[in-house]
Amino acid sequence: MSKQKVVVALGHDALGSTTLKQLDAVKKTAKALADLVEADYQLTITHSNGPQISMIHKAMSELHRIYTDYTPAPMCVCSAMSQGYVGYDIQNALKSELLRRGISKPVSTLLTQVTVDPYDDAFYEPKKALGRYMSKEDADLEVNKGNYIVQEAKGYRRVVAAPHPIDIVEIDAIKTLADADQVVIACGGGGIPVIEQQHILKGASAVIEKDSIAGKLATDLQADELIILTSVDYVFLHYGQENQTPIKTMSVEQAKLYICDGQFGETDMLPKIMAAISYLSAVPSGKAIITSLDKTADIISEKTGTIITS
Amino acid sequence: MSKQKVVVALGHDALGSTTLKQLDAVKKTAKALADLVEADYQLTITHSNGPQISMIHKAMSELHRIYTDYTPAPMCVCSAMSQGYVGYDIQNALKSELLRRGISKPVSTLLTQVTVDPYDDAFYEPKKALGRYMSKEDADLEVNKGNYIVQEAKGYRRVVAAPHPIDIVEIDAIKTLADADQVVIACGGGGIPVIEQQHILKGASAVIEKDSIAGKLATDLQADELIILTSVDYVFLHYGQENQTPIKTMSVEQAKLYICDGQFGETDMLPKIMAAISYLSAVPSGKAIITSLDKTADIISEKTGTIITS
Repeated sequence: MSKQKVVVALGHDALGSTTLKQLDAVKKTAKALADLVEADYQLTITHSNGPQISMIHKAMSELHRIYTDYTPAPMCVCSAMSQGYVGYDIQNALKSELLRRGISKPVSTLLTQVTVDPYDDAFYEPKKALGRYMSKEDADLEVNKGNYIVQEAKGYRRVVAAPHPIDIVEIDAIKTLADADQVVIACGGGGIPVIEQQHILKGASAVIEKDSIAGKLATDLQADELIILTSVDYVFLHYGQENQTPIKTMSVEQAKLYICDGQFGETDMLPKIMAAISYLSAVPSGKAIITSLDKTADIISEKTGTIITS
Repeated sequence: MSKQKVVVALGHDALGSTTLKQLDAVKKTAKALADLVEADYQLTITHSNGPQISMIHKAMSELHRIYTDYTPAPMCVCSAMSQGYVGYDIQNALKSELLRRGISKPVSTLLTQVTVDPYDDAFYEPKKALGRYMSKEDADLEVNKGNYIVQEAKGYRRVVAAPHPIDIVEIDAIKTLADADQVVIACGGGGIPVIEQQHILKGASAVIEKDSIAGKLATDLQADELIILTSVDYVFLHYGQENQTPIKTMSVEQAKLYICDGQFGETDMLPKIMAAISYLSAVPSGKAIITSLDKTADIISEKTGTIITS
């Protein structure tokens, strides 16, 4: 079998919410990824960073509150730090797991910027809640600074835009490593969002959805497969209801009909299906698989997961 | 002229000490680096991270103090975050500067781990001060946790070991990008120090000196040149004295004699000279240049800087 070029998207389950939990979680994740490497897949890995960027943003905000000589870290800097943090843990755990199996394969993380459109609708209605919970007073200060705030049960939180990705700035570097049959971790947390203004890449106060960038990455790499690892073994019809039914295979057309039927949760499954559709429209020979991290090994034999083809 | 493969080491002057200052500093640094790219040098860039890792370590410590559900971030995680933070700012500024000049060249940062020897003398006598100043009580708590502490004028601070680099774990990825004539930022802050124990890469509570890893990187890449950018235009004899004299060129042998003579400051110039000697011993055809960031453009015409050859 010729080498399959695969983009793997890791969700929250593959990582943890604190440094210790993540260190533990990535060990299990590394085993799943190493199974794919052993099955001769070339992996380009991307991952979410919700709890991680929140933790870093909170830490940097507290630092600025306590020591005013430190300027607050903008969201793009927190995103870059989270790519460093999560990327290191994944590449460290995966390299260790491969060494344990006697596989000598380079694994590395590329810091990745992704351009977004300053006129993206998402900037007019930011929806992605991030960072620490604030008092009413602190929330008012943020509003005065031009930031968006939402009130949640535990307090006020900053919300940022989640615009669509336009271009992956470091795509050439990613392609070079992927073509050299190395394992690459890239576009962590959706990528660091930047706006290109007169040849300047300006960091944007936003986050890009991990699923969205995974579809873009699979498209740009002309990947044979896009594997989205989440917390469920299958995409389901009538999810959470008595007549819940796993979908073993579906075409892009069927997927679109199910979307019209409101079958997929707006914040969890819908972005995954949309990423698959976007990728398969650009790479009709491709295959998208949505399954759980626990069942990764079964992907190889097609024993599990929802398979979407064009 | 055939393409020169060059390792560039950036010191504190090339970066800033806070997020805003760094954003400003990297713009100037990017211009200097772009001059080298325009002169057809292939650049692999490494950089220091003293103020950055201190800032992050301080932020993560404060986070843990305020919200005890967050576990403290170990030094290796802070190092990874600092690679993300500094790497992003450099690659962003350099890419922007290249776009402005109409140069389409990939620039990216590779997260880099570097193995160190657990029996390195540095672990028995940690000397590198990092992070926040502490009260006597907090310092005692750190000592109880097995960490080393020094007393400075402004309070107590944690000190960590600065062991010698053994191997650059991601060297294959770095070589692949360098061979593809891309600009690579790697081994930021000396690299994330890890100890290989039975196929496990375990993050170490240490930092690796930037100059030391620059020499190693130039050796591993068989670089044509090692450029160390610092705050002075030349290495000087009798530095800071009335008879201070710039060194235009010197051989490795002369450099060793000057070292015996105590000519170079132990914490600033000596590590740079040692890195040059180490690189030139492995790559006798190479050239090491030590000069200031401001004079980078003059390197091309050999109008400035101390040139060391074997």
